[in-house]
Amino acid sequence: MRIIEIKKDVLSKNDEIAARVRANFKLRGIFAMNLISSPGSGKTTLLVKTIHDLKSKIPIAVIEGDQQTDNDAKRIAATGVPVIQINTLSSCHLDAAMVETALEKLAFPGPGLLFIENVGNLVCPASFDLGENMKVALVSVTEGEDKPMKYPKAFRVSSAMVITKTDLLPHLEFDMASLLDLAGKINPSLHVFHLSAKTGDGLDDWYDYLLSLARRG
Amino acid sequence: MRIIEIKKDVLSKNDEIAARVRANFKLRGIFAMNLISSPGSGKTTLLVKTIHDLKSKIPIAVIEGDQQTDNDAKRIAATGVPVIQINTLSSCHLDAAMVETALEKLAFPGPGLLFIENVGNLVCPASFDLGENMKVALVSVTEGEDKPMKYPKAFRVSSAMVITKTDLLPHLEFDMASLLDLAGKINPSLHVFHLSAKTGDGLDDWYDYLLSLARRG
Repeated sequence: MRIIEIKKDVLSKNDEIAARVRANFKLRGIFAMNLISSPGSGKTTLLVKTIHDLKSKIPIAVIEGDQQTDNDAKRIAATGVPVIQINTLSSCHLDAAMVETALEKLAFPGPGLLFIENVGNLVCPASFDLGENMKVALVSVTEGEDKPMKYPKAFRVSSAMVITKTDLLPHLEFDMASLLDLAGKINPSLHVFHLSAKTGDGLDDWYDYLLSLARRG
Repeated sequence: MRIIEIKKDVLSKNDEIAARVRANFKLRGIFAMNLISSPGSGKTTLLVKTIHDLKSKIPIAVIEGDQQTDNDAKRIAATGVPVIQINTLSSCHLDAAMVETALEKLAFPGPGLLFIENVGNLVCPASFDLGENMKVALVSVTEGEDKPMKYPKAFRVSSAMVITKTDLLPHLEFDMASLLDLAGKINPSLHVFHLSAKTGDGLDDWYDYLLSLARRG
């Protein structure tokens, strides 16, 4: 019981900070997208490709979350856009206070598109509001089609599901219809994208979606 | 500060129960292996294949951990060995109390081999002793070679690393030497297995390891 009360304290404190971060984003014309997935689903690879293809059309910045290392921030920095790495150490997710601190150090006044790449984890990040405009869940076809059922909250709180690594489909026993059916049961309003950052398949739809979101604000 | 104290309380309470579970395992001749990985790394698929091939040689049982669903327990149950599903709901890992409760309901007096399949997550499960004899980290080749650096604790507390889905290597840009180098830096005493549950490659080494552990007790 005591633990649950503490958890409520943590979440309500987080929500206060998230509201402040959200107001800050709005004031500066920043559209913020919180990316959630398993480790190794291809969040960073998709971001590097997306930034490469869209940075001439819209200002982009990234906040990278990892338990340890700044490998991902280095990969993003090579694209030339502003990036800050957060190492969460023992924590399994980013929280709003981490994002607020990172924003102070990020050379990105806005307007534009801010990607927040959460720690690779389908459980904890689903419970924390970072002040973002939307959460997006990524799932690679190599992970199996059952992820929305096993980790329903991540898909329930997300506005879109991005199915990655579709180039590997010919080599897998993967039931796409089942993934779509399960995801639709968890969250009928989920926008769904199928793409491969490696071959480029499906990226145009993803880019159109990002640009329309960022322009709408 | 308050949160950290509670966390210590939680961990020290967990350790007490884990010690009781460990004594119970020892008394009954059960060798317990706690499997940790990202969602979709192939833990259940490897277990189903392992049980199929080893159940005539040694008694086996499974405790399945998932945030939701009993899909994995159903897959294990189809092999004919005793299995209990734990749904952790909001929690991102199994704890010793969950395992102690599951053991009471599991029709497995021992001796034999007990697999505890943790929630798909490379962060939280690394911090919780379940009373197991050893932790084993799985990483699929589709997740990229950087996982030991980004989630070091999971690899530091594990006795073995099982590299799964090696049948997909021809279709990936995957730097195996880098994975082995990074994992070796985090934990030089890690036993490493390369295998594909799909093709059967590498399973014999894995089975020899399991049988020698279980016989040694």
